[in-house]
Amino acid sequence: MNSFDSNDVSNRLDHVRIVMVNTTLPANIGSALRAMKTMGLSKLVLVAPKTYPHPDIDALAAGAQDLIEKIEIVETLEQAIQDCHLVFGTSARSRTIPWPLLDVRPAAKEALNAASKDQNIAIVFGREDRGLTNEELALANYHLTIPVNPDYGVLNVAQAIQVVCYELRMAAFEHHNQPNEIKNDHMQLKQQQSMQWDEPLVTQQQMEEFYPHFEKMLTEIEFLDPNNPRLLPLRLRRLFGRIQLDRMEYHLLRGVFSRVQALASGSWKKNIKEDQSHD
Amino acid sequence: MNSFDSNDVSNRLDHVRIVMVNTTLPANIGSALRAMKTMGLSKLVLVAPKTYPHPDIDALAAGAQDLIEKIEIVETLEQAIQDCHLVFGTSARSRTIPWPLLDVRPAAKEALNAASKDQNIAIVFGREDRGLTNEELALANYHLTIPVNPDYGVLNVAQAIQVVCYELRMAAFEHHNQPNEIKNDHMQLKQQQSMQWDEPLVTQQQMEEFYPHFEKMLTEIEFLDPNNPRLLPLRLRRLFGRIQLDRMEYHLLRGVFSRVQALASGSWKKNIKEDQSHD
Repeated sequence: MNSFDSNDVSNRLDHVRIVMVNTTLPANIGSALRAMKTMGLSKLVLVAPKTYPHPDIDALAAGAQDLIEKIEIVETLEQAIQDCHLVFGTSARSRTIPWPLLDVRPAAKEALNAASKDQNIAIVFGREDRGLTNEELALANYHLTIPVNPDYGVLNVAQAIQVVCYELRMAAFEHHNQPNEIKNDHMQLKQQQSMQWDEPLVTQQQMEEFYPHFEKMLTEIEFLDPNNPRLLPLRLRRLFGRIQLDRMEYHLLRGVFSRVQALASGSWKKNIKEDQSHD
Repeated sequence: MNSFDSNDVSNRLDHVRIVMVNTTLPANIGSALRAMKTMGLSKLVLVAPKTYPHPDIDALAAGAQDLIEKIEIVETLEQAIQDCHLVFGTSARSRTIPWPLLDVRPAAKEALNAASKDQNIAIVFGREDRGLTNEELALANYHLTIPVNPDYGVLNVAQAIQVVCYELRMAAFEHHNQPNEIKNDHMQLKQQQSMQWDEPLVTQQQMEEFYPHFEKMLTEIEFLDPNNPRLLPLRLRRLFGRIQLDRMEYHLLRGVFSRVQALASGSWKKNIKEDQSHD
């Protein structure tokens, strides 16, 4: 995952608009703007909002003034989506109207796929109390649903927009990163951290010096019997193989082993200070 | 995706608790409960909330009365996570403390993977204004971040909890739908080996005895200066927080520490054989 929005990612997200139909509470519009901007979306279209403008919108969308200025107000859903190639209508599962239904994750992938072909995409959200009408849903190519707890499916419109915008952002990155997407946590770690602790991981070859050193130390303190090591060496490999040490950690631990060896051999005694350079 | 929560999915989500530290606004607690219940989570732990109880909590968590009744209030983060095996601390990317950092999606997968092995997982959220302290973040195995627009990374705590709970739910389904997928090396190792190595993982509480023991040993061999520890204690936490020791490994390492301590104090000398019972 990048730590900045490349032009590629933000251009694609610019192809996706959020459409809110007949919204009653200005706070929901403000929250939507905040969710959008946080996730890198910028275009909100309001279809016949009940109250607009309203100070709650500005309060909740603090810092998203640029999005407020770009808001488009229209009278009908048809107008909101007229230049769109792909329209998703959000819907609870229980709708009676049969329609191609996608969960939000595959829907976001479809949307970004279309965006990469310079298509315009709309995700349409309905009224706080009763969502979209069947007539409105019929204007969509797909219905989009968020898989929620069936005993308590009461995601409000602001929460739903938050989840949808998050998935759109994730899909934009996925699209951007393929085919070089790297799943490995530790690699991710390396990519995401840009500080002085960003130490390279040690190689397998270095670890092949680490284990014998550890075992030699354990032998010298008679914790390990080289004639009857039992499972101990294997356990150490399993344990440190799981970690993937970075260079600093590697030298730190080997420094500890050496100190213990010196102590065991009598070549180093307590209270005789030596130079320490472990961090 | 299922349209209902199987026992499997809900049992796994029951292993994950949300922890909110020093929350100021009751509305955020209410929103958190709503987000949790919508996504099938049930356990919220509040660490020293500023205002509790409060009518805003009940108002925003309408319909989630069962979760309100299960809220646990504690004084410290340590208490909130003491029986947890895996702890995620949420953090903005810009933190200066370096730590294994996962985006929310792979983090949710890790969490559900652990849940499937009956481990307890905590996802910890910080204060509205300044998140978690570095000391609190150091108690986590991993840091978790939500990849947001770097120009406007102002997801509030309720929105962050919404996204995290959504990803946990998605991961629970994914896990449920792919029971045979091998999730990581550790599982693979366990499946391939048919010996008594299948040891339970130690808890966070046990690790809170591990680190002081390690540091005491390092102090006694004068590798660590307790008056000027520099980054060493933090490095050790980072290193072993990454691993999740199992019980056998834990006792093995503590056995090594004790042996080195005995050597340093002169109470144990080389070539005087003692009983060894490390595996």
